[in-house]
Amino acid sequence: MKNATTLILILSLLVSSQVYAQEDYKDIHTKHEYTIEQKHEVLDIDYDAIRFKKRPKNIILFIGDGMGVSQVFSGITVNDGLNMEQMPYVGFIKTQSADNYVTDSGAGGTAISTGTRTYNGAIGLDVNGNRLTTILEYSERNGKATGLVSTSAITHATPASFIAHQPQRSMYEDIAGDFLETEIDVFIGGGADFFTKRVDGRNLVLELSEKGYHVGYNVDDVSGVTSGKLAVLTAVAHNPGYRDRGEMLTKSTAKAIEVLDNADSKGFFLMVEGSQIDWGGHQNDASYVTGEVLDMDKALAEALKFAMQDKRTLVIVTADHETGGMTVNNGDPKKGFVKTGFTTGNHSAVMVPVFAFGAGAEEFIGIYDNTEIFEKMYKLFKFKEEEKDN
Amino acid sequence: MKNATTLILILSLLVSSQVYAQEDYKDIHTKHEYTIEQKHEVLDIDYDAIRFKKRPKNIILFIGDGMGVSQVFSGITVNDGLNMEQMPYVGFIKTQSADNYVTDSGAGGTAISTGTRTYNGAIGLDVNGNRLTTILEYSERNGKATGLVSTSAITHATPASFIAHQPQRSMYEDIAGDFLETEIDVFIGGGADFFTKRVDGRNLVLELSEKGYHVGYNVDDVSGVTSGKLAVLTAVAHNPGYRDRGEMLTKSTAKAIEVLDNADSKGFFLMVEGSQIDWGGHQNDASYVTGEVLDMDKALAEALKFAMQDKRTLVIVTADHETGGMTVNNGDPKKGFVKTGFTTGNHSAVMVPVFAFGAGAEEFIGIYDNTEIFEKMYKLFKFKEEEKDN
Repeated sequence: MKNATTLILILSLLVSSQVYAQEDYKDIHTKHEYTIEQKHEVLDIDYDAIRFKKRPKNIILFIGDGMGVSQVFSGITVNDGLNMEQMPYVGFIKTQSADNYVTDSGAGGTAISTGTRTYNGAIGLDVNGNRLTTILEYSERNGKATGLVSTSAITHATPASFIAHQPQRSMYEDIAGDFLETEIDVFIGGGADFFTKRVDGRNLVLELSEKGYHVGYNVDDVSGVTSGKLAVLTAVAHNPGYRDRGEMLTKSTAKAIEVLDNADSKGFFLMVEGSQIDWGGHQNDASYVTGEVLDMDKALAEALKFAMQDKRTLVIVTADHETGGMTVNNGDPKKGFVKTGFTTGNHSAVMVPVFAFGAGAEEFIGIYDNTEIFEKMYKLFKFKEEEKDN
Repeated sequence: MKNATTLILILSLLVSSQVYAQEDYKDIHTKHEYTIEQKHEVLDIDYDAIRFKKRPKNIILFIGDGMGVSQVFSGITVNDGLNMEQMPYVGFIKTQSADNYVTDSGAGGTAISTGTRTYNGAIGLDVNGNRLTTILEYSERNGKATGLVSTSAITHATPASFIAHQPQRSMYEDIAGDFLETEIDVFIGGGADFFTKRVDGRNLVLELSEKGYHVGYNVDDVSGVTSGKLAVLTAVAHNPGYRDRGEMLTKSTAKAIEVLDNADSKGFFLMVEGSQIDWGGHQNDASYVTGEVLDMDKALAEALKFAMQDKRTLVIVTADHETGGMTVNNGDPKKGFVKTGFTTGNHSAVMVPVFAFGAGAEEFIGIYDNTEIFEKMYKLFKFKEEEKDN
């Protein structure tokens, strides 16, 4: 009898294990449901009533790291609407890297920032290790002010790919060093230790100060700084998650726009990253993912408001890739509830959405490669084709 | 020792079962990978070179039942491109029904066909059981020719919701009867038995013939029919899957367009459904899903070619909902290979893509409710607001 029971149990277990293995789950979590903590107001925009200029003087690019369609729709569900929905022009980008159908954030960011696909892990270099010029660097060359904002360390793959050139994304100290090689006007994010506690003994905060930067460690502390060069290192490494970060991203976005708009320049380029949507995806955590999407959507309102007033600004929202193979299986906007599913603890291959608003936004419709984001921005900024390095 | 082993096994089994339950899998299949059998050629269209009219005289609406972003991207991956990608205007629809965040195909179809959300299972009726007028019926009223094509039975929920008015989608014989209440010019799909082997003893094929329809049972048999009224009942119930159906959908689409274009009418409305993408999703079968997406994409080429030549035709591709909570976790376009994941055996809640091409296509950008597809078609057809029943 016991033997029979044991046999049945062994067989059941084998079947269960096999089923489990077939599903390719790498992380198993129970956090597949989320009820919103606090809904945010969504802008009510009559797009047709605004007359945007045909070409942008300024571009504000939001990258929701790991933000696929389901991540966006989870936010729409629990908040009963998002600011992203106010962006009328919709497209998709194919996120593949040069060496893998599933990109990492280094190659994904580099494709968007330079128009060139590279190997996974690369920052601002091509497959042969050659330096690529980024849209931020082209902007600088062409007399525009530039900025980066991130909820991770500012040296993390996505912001790094707009300013740094290193063979591996993990070279945080080298990436921090690359910030000093540029004339970037404002950057706000974590990673203070990569600037000060370095193997090479350099103190980059000191060097930044000598270069004329106002350096702060909290976005509230720099509220009086409205122009000039500004570096805010908001954490020793990464910033905490949305629950413990307060309004860091919204305030940083508003501050960056203010400083860049006040710069004596021919417009500006600003990249803002909602970094931790990706980390929620890796953890298959619906709350983490959705809370981070909502947080970025709040920051987005600052950019949309500026664009509406300015009329020469283009706002783009996209992602470097999807994370988690996330799905939205049920929900209730009235209760602020969503039920999700996940199929991987890694990035997935699916194309990710692009939303565009403002001057030149109509260029972002259709399905195209991630490299086209760079090409479209370069063209809309009227930078010269013959001055392209890549 | 045996007891200890048994205990460990019981515990392991409990843990496994719990993990399994947490993932909410309703169907477990091993068919999560697909390698394409035969790639199809994708049209190479220079959209900017074509001067479409501002408003469409004809609309061809494709509904990929259960086709979310991952279903489309799976097709893009294995075929290394799709005709859908040639459709420049992209949007999303929210698919929720009146009584459930996850719609069925009856309510999903009715929202698209009538502009009114209803309860799951309803066909062309509102939540109070009142009859709703469909875009096909408005088209008929306004002197346009009309048609329906489907790879399921023509009485199945999606095509039914464009022509029938019944409280439950399962009332196939009543739905078949509703075809006789209209002046639809062409319909091609399965479901012959619902027209002939009926509880009420009526022979609807006879009645169709008496009404002047050419009735056939295979699209190849009616190749000589190029105008007039045409009904082709291609199967006793549903058509077989894509592997055993041959070019049924492409030929049927081409035939319907030909007959409708030859009608003595003020343009036409045609709905074409790729029904079985949904069935592949329910089975969590990557091959079935992707093969059906490719099959619909082949048929789509017929509509795009016609629209390019005609210049007064609008082609829309969308879905009633997503099925399977599908994700694309890896792939290789060169090898025609895709690796997918699924999180449910049911429909999911996520917004689904809209692609538009041709006259008036620019109206389909943004994120909006499924009911807007009806509203946009109604408006683009210049039907009068004061003549709306709903």
